[in-house]
Amino acid sequence: MEQRKFCIVGLGLLGGSYAMALARAGCRVTGIDVRAEAVRYALENGLIADGAAAGDARVPALLGEAEVVVLGLYPGAMVPWVETHGGFLAPGALVTDVCGVKCAVVRRVQALLRPDVEFIPCHPMAGREVSGVEHADCAMFRQANFLITPTEKNTAQAIAFAEELGRTLGFARITVLSCEEHDRMIGYVSQLAHVIAVALMNANDDPALPRTTGDSFRDLTRIAKINEHLWSELFFANRDVLVGEIDQFCAEMGRLRAALTGGDEAALKEMLRRAAERRREFDRIERAPLEEKRL
Amino acid sequence: MEQRKFCIVGLGLLGGSYAMALARAGCRVTGIDVRAEAVRYALENGLIADGAAAGDARVPALLGEAEVVVLGLYPGAMVPWVETHGGFLAPGALVTDVCGVKCAVVRRVQALLRPDVEFIPCHPMAGREVSGVEHADCAMFRQANFLITPTEKNTAQAIAFAEELGRTLGFARITVLSCEEHDRMIGYVSQLAHVIAVALMNANDDPALPRTTGDSFRDLTRIAKINEHLWSELFFANRDVLVGEIDQFCAEMGRLRAALTGGDEAALKEMLRRAAERRREFDRIERAPLEEKRL
Repeated sequence: MEQRKFCIVGLGLLGGSYAMALARAGCRVTGIDVRAEAVRYALENGLIADGAAAGDARVPALLGEAEVVVLGLYPGAMVPWVETHGGFLAPGALVTDVCGVKCAVVRRVQALLRPDVEFIPCHPMAGREVSGVEHADCAMFRQANFLITPTEKNTAQAIAFAEELGRTLGFARITVLSCEEHDRMIGYVSQLAHVIAVALMNANDDPALPRTTGDSFRDLTRIAKINEHLWSELFFANRDVLVGEIDQFCAEMGRLRAALTGGDEAALKEMLRRAAERRREFDRIERAPLEEKRL
Repeated sequence: MEQRKFCIVGLGLLGGSYAMALARAGCRVTGIDVRAEAVRYALENGLIADGAAAGDARVPALLGEAEVVVLGLYPGAMVPWVETHGGFLAPGALVTDVCGVKCAVVRRVQALLRPDVEFIPCHPMAGREVSGVEHADCAMFRQANFLITPTEKNTAQAIAFAEELGRTLGFARITVLSCEEHDRMIGYVSQLAHVIAVALMNANDDPALPRTTGDSFRDLTRIAKINEHLWSELFFANRDVLVGEIDQFCAEMGRLRAALTGGDEAALKEMLRRAAERRREFDRIERAPLEEKRL
């Protein structure tokens, strides 16, 4: 991994954190961003060894010398970027990404790329409630999941490279799954969770609430501090799955409501008991691989 | 406060943590619990100076010597306790509680008590996902809210005492509000939040999920590790408010769903933007009083 030359396209929170982790691992890392200040910040803080703003005459050369190109772009920017920049990639280059949705993007990107370039899709499940390279911090990868979503077009070597990349970045768990499995899972554990936090925050506008809230409300709404441009793209790109999850969740809310209005204490307790049991099981499974890794 | 003699009735997580904080503040604290082991644990760990199991012949004396009795009981146990033990209280004694619902309990308790005893209702908004005196730890009060919900029957002195109690226990913020305001607020920030966590945990039973989840899902479902007996009581005791909050929240989920299925990007972004803005405002207001206290 340390021998590889990387170019990060999109020096945002994630792209910047990739650059930080890879530079620390001894890789040569360059960067490109639409904001000249992002490139300057990354250079001045040692995240990249060289870089240029999008549109700069040096962009083709920076891309051409990279063995691995990391697209730290919004989902909707992926296909346009490949259309305009795919020709600058070196023969044999690997391309990877950080996109939070896969079906809407991966096969279109793979179909557009030249046959001598391979796109191995990844989703680093990490983030913050802030954006921009100025908040880059590879510590956010430490407890997090790194998902690799290859298609039938990917080689075993590219998948092995992505696993090695996830380890170098410092992720706790690395999982390989299909684009379809990925989008189904993410629709539930991430997108539905964000929709709920937003709805909860918007459901009541009593200005006295902040003085009297408890930890539970704070925890549930932390992710309501959402980047509306990115998440709107992510939601629409996975709309069918997300709407299905919303419906399943609302049906469950309806069952709880019915137990309450019907005075069905036994049914209510059973739902509470099952949720508590499943959440504890969740903790148990989730901790196990981490402990293994720590041995 | 240090001069007062307290008796804690119900040495659970909260009652035990009250005992710990009051003993550290130099108060004389005794305790009563249905579990003899809870009393033994509290004695052995210095949480109480004296104690007895419920039904023990010493209970009337322990109650009779207390100037302040703290009822660390489930909501449904409050009225029966006052009916059977109210006669043992000393003339002039203050009674307080830790109950998470108020309208269903407070006026009934006040009506049952002798006129020479005053019940000043309180709700310490703190907890853990575990129960029992063995987990008592008054550190849980440090960032939390202490709510006092007096009625027209309460004296200014009793309210002032409750404020002093909240400070002695170490709470960050102390708020006085009516029982009705309390139950409306708690229906939203606490009970609805718990219903959502339970529904989210029960909405999908894919066993592969724990390996691939992110922080957001963990945060949203932490409180699904719920005590079904306590929370079933709390929900039913505040049912009308809670059902109203469920309906308001589900309507908000419906608006998000409609923006998605209708492809209305502008409406979706506006909902996300508003939620993020309100959550940031929330952080700002919430932090302010804490900072004041730290000066």
